[in-house]
Amino acid sequence: MRISKYYLATLKEAPSEAVIDSHKLMIRAGMVRKLASGVYTWLPTGKRVLNKVENIVRREMNAAGSLETLATMVIPAELWIESQRYDSYGNNLLKFKDRKEADFVLGPTHEEVFTHLVRQEVSSYRQLPLNLYQIQTKFRDETRPRFGILRTREFIMKDAYSFHLNHESLVETYKDMETAYHKVFTACGLQFRAVEADNGDMGGSGSKEFQVLAPAGEDVIAYCENSDYAANIEKAPAIPSTVRQAPTKEVEKVHTPGVASIESLVDFTKTDITKTIKLLVVKGATEEAPLVALALRGDHELNEVKANHHPLVASPVTMADFAEIERVFNAKPGSLGVVNCPIPLVVDDTALTVSDFATGANETDYHLFGVNWDRDVTNYQSADLRNAVEGDPSPDGKGTLSLTRGCECGHIFMLGDKYSKAYNFTVTDENGQNLHPLMGCYGIGVTRVVAAAIEQNHDDFGCTLPDALAPFLVGLVPVNYNKSEVVRQFADQFYQELPLKDEVYFDDRGERLGVALADIDLLGVPYQFIVGEKNLANNQVEFKNRRTGEKELLSIEEAKAKAKELLLNYVK
Amino acid sequence: MRISKYYLATLKEAPSEAVIDSHKLMIRAGMVRKLASGVYTWLPTGKRVLNKVENIVRREMNAAGSLETLATMVIPAELWIESQRYDSYGNNLLKFKDRKEADFVLGPTHEEVFTHLVRQEVSSYRQLPLNLYQIQTKFRDETRPRFGILRTREFIMKDAYSFHLNHESLVETYKDMETAYHKVFTACGLQFRAVEADNGDMGGSGSKEFQVLAPAGEDVIAYCENSDYAANIEKAPAIPSTVRQAPTKEVEKVHTPGVASIESLVDFTKTDITKTIKLLVVKGATEEAPLVALALRGDHELNEVKANHHPLVASPVTMADFAEIERVFNAKPGSLGVVNCPIPLVVDDTALTVSDFATGANETDYHLFGVNWDRDVTNYQSADLRNAVEGDPSPDGKGTLSLTRGCECGHIFMLGDKYSKAYNFTVTDENGQNLHPLMGCYGIGVTRVVAAAIEQNHDDFGCTLPDALAPFLVGLVPVNYNKSEVVRQFADQFYQELPLKDEVYFDDRGERLGVALADIDLLGVPYQFIVGEKNLANNQVEFKNRRTGEKELLSIEEAKAKAKELLLNYVK
Repeated sequence: MRISKYYLATLKEAPSEAVIDSHKLMIRAGMVRKLASGVYTWLPTGKRVLNKVENIVRREMNAAGSLETLATMVIPAELWIESQRYDSYGNNLLKFKDRKEADFVLGPTHEEVFTHLVRQEVSSYRQLPLNLYQIQTKFRDETRPRFGILRTREFIMKDAYSFHLNHESLVETYKDMETAYHKVFTACGLQFRAVEADNGDMGGSGSKEFQVLAPAGEDVIAYCENSDYAANIEKAPAIPSTVRQAPTKEVEKVHTPGVASIESLVDFTKTDITKTIKLLVVKGATEEAPLVALALRGDHELNEVKANHHPLVASPVTMADFAEIERVFNAKPGSLGVVNCPIPLVVDDTALTVSDFATGANETDYHLFGVNWDRDVTNYQSADLRNAVEGDPSPDGKGTLSLTRGCECGHIFMLGDKYSKAYNFTVTDENGQNLHPLMGCYGIGVTRVVAAAIEQNHDDFGCTLPDALAPFLVGLVPVNYNKSEVVRQFADQFYQELPLKDEVYFDDRGERLGVALADIDLLGVPYQFIVGEKNLANNQVEFKNRRTGEKELLSIEEAKAKAKELLLNYVK
Repeated sequence: MRISKYYLATLKEAPSEAVIDSHKLMIRAGMVRKLASGVYTWLPTGKRVLNKVENIVRREMNAAGSLETLATMVIPAELWIESQRYDSYGNNLLKFKDRKEADFVLGPTHEEVFTHLVRQEVSSYRQLPLNLYQIQTKFRDETRPRFGILRTREFIMKDAYSFHLNHESLVETYKDMETAYHKVFTACGLQFRAVEADNGDMGGSGSKEFQVLAPAGEDVIAYCENSDYAANIEKAPAIPSTVRQAPTKEVEKVHTPGVASIESLVDFTKTDITKTIKLLVVKGATEEAPLVALALRGDHELNEVKANHHPLVASPVTMADFAEIERVFNAKPGSLGVVNCPIPLVVDDTALTVSDFATGANETDYHLFGVNWDRDVTNYQSADLRNAVEGDPSPDGKGTLSLTRGCECGHIFMLGDKYSKAYNFTVTDENGQNLHPLMGCYGIGVTRVVAAAIEQNHDDFGCTLPDALAPFLVGLVPVNYNKSEVVRQFADQFYQELPLKDEVYFDDRGERLGVALADIDLLGVPYQFIVGEKNLANNQVEFKNRRTGEKELLSIEEAKAKAKELLLNYVK
């Protein structure tokens, strides 16, 4: 590609609203432009990267036996009413009427469309299993679109839906998809982890997220260095690393004026934070218990997903308001504790291993010290309520957990019969019996992969995307192209001899060298050949590896051979 | 592709609502399914064909120097308000509000988005020309979606927008796009014509349609057998083939009770229809002339697009109602004529060449015979008002016109400065002066190409698509695959040896031969190898050319060589 004929659109500065690196760089490198909140146009450089992701996804899905289809963005509302998600999906589901006042939605996901399609097509076990995918545009009317391309409203997703006669068949396809996803992210050249995940409101029995590792990721991943274990922190069991010691102290009530948080308790009383127990009051799931108390060690965080799953706790987790708390406890929220708790008490497993601890006295401006479970507190349940932390035992018993952050770019689910039941979709089995097929669904956020890849692969100068995703593979930068006849002739000839010119970033603009080098580094062209008059006089060309930053002088013959080899071996 | 692992979805019958062949066949061949009026899901076989069209379009657009981008389907209403099309586009423009009550539209076309994008990016002549394209999903909320995939509401279009400093640059890109479109439709293997077209409400100075020829096409094309001339009948000048003869008769008034149409006049009076003149009364464009009369030879059709362009006629053309006509003419509509016409009269150029003609007497149940222009009718204007017919002189003077029908699958426009002016988009030229860039736009209906291709290429047994668009290139049909071990082993081995297996339709389902042959013909796999036990015993395989229907027996070696050669030479 001659860059004089290309639309580069690089910028020195990113807009101030861009806070994460991929957002800044995608704007600066001329990959995308914002049209409206969460709505972006892809410019040529961005589209080149996006096409590469799409091609990899298509290739691996085809290889795994999934069949490509294409549904529409516009979906009749009746399909969403039938699945009972028309209301429950919330405001992310964009609803509208057509010219005949018929109700439609913009598809945020396509379980409905594919279940409906397949129930019309399939009636016999002979037609199963079936695995259909599409690479298609979705719209989710997010409250707060953010982080550039990581969370937009309109985006491209590869979504696949599989249909099965029995669980074994579902598991087989689920595993095939898991393998295909490993191949996709490996082929993209990304560092990623497949992690156990919560199913959310998708229903079903199993799910795994494919997390592209990056410090700005929205998800926290707990993983074991010594094994394959990895889970979204939402899902990772938090296992106590110690057992409880016997009590050594008696309960002592202390006046703690103005101490309304664990932090101030620790500051004020010089207590070890791991010897404190805090109480959170949330709405209950039942009429008998409209409020429920959750006890955690002072330094631990509540895991809302785990709390959601507790039968006593209303889902989604909702904190009780202060007035309600004061009415029930007759104490201010900063002085709550586990002794004589007036509402049902659920204690985190790890909190239960603490002895001789401090906790609120359920009396404003007082705390108790030297408290011990079972001696001083007897009426409680226990559960895993907290987020795992670094150093917790790995659930597989093979060491301890570390934490890292990731961007969820893929998700595979075993859905079970949730949708086939809702749609009254049955097939006859070998014995003529009707049964609801089991389903799986499998998504990859195609546009998000581009952002996550840049989040993971960049430096102070711009993008450092892996070869498979870089917008161009090879760069050719002539110095003084418009002034030096020698350079011009050589560079034109060099370019002319190269195969796969579409992957060659040939900067024939005649810009100043500083500008040219800044642009090619901003885009992150992995292999750069810089052609200058002085080096040419010595029969040499400078070669730079963008990711390592290494530079070396090659003979003209070596340079040409290297560029050709890189291009000929490039698999798009 | 092993068809046992594929989702074929062929049907014996098409739904009764399918009236044209491509619609019937696309349903029967398992290419698409209807989800809602004008909203279709593409099944694997359809998506395979669609991908081939997309790949050809992408390849030729890239080769022509257009740069791929991707805009969104969801567009802020403000961009459409700024172009003043938010209201004027009509109900085809689907409007909705997002969760924050902001107004949006689903993009039916993207002049607005691309003009807005480029005005933010480009400020200097140095950045022009620029030609950006996308292959993207549109939504037009048609009143009456029809003809299956030929006119849907949600569809895929390749749309390109170019920006220029001056007319020469616009013309250059326009011609490049014209050439690229010729290459696209040629590569698809389709019979097509590039025809002159009316600009409609797009503005601008020139446009050409690319019509895929097919009897069911919505458009009529006039073309010259002896030259390159071709135009949409909307646009084709209708030139008189004779000159007017001198009057030979006097005017005679005849009682014609019950004669209220040209047809009954011809029947009743045994008059030659080419010696009759009919009068159509339409709404006028001006207050001075609220009604206007249009005179045409009895056998000619009014060309509404030409009438639209006449300064006296209201656009769009609207027939006057009967009551209005009777009030002004004091005669019933069936008895109107050109003598003493009480409203402004516009006479078609060809009607003006008729002498001694019959026409209504402007008196109920009377007609005049022996009427002659200028002698009997003096107050009139003339214009080209009719559709061209077979045998009319070609406007380029190189012979006569023939008519055929086509599906408009591509359209290229010179838009001029309509949008850059509406968007107040200027660039500075070489002299530092601000000017509005000129624009072109270039569309291909990607989904429509598939339907048009089938409309053009089918027979009683199914689709006969050209190689480039056929869902699979090569078919392998083993007879009794599940029963004959010899056939099974041979077919498996044959398949195993083939390259590009994705293009091989290997029917390993073990269906009855009749079903297998009907399915492969319905899909239209161009080159079919039928493997049966009897032929194998003679070292032979049957080869069938789907389009010609020719069958021949090949030796096993010839068959294998032929299949391999076809696949290795296949350019997708």
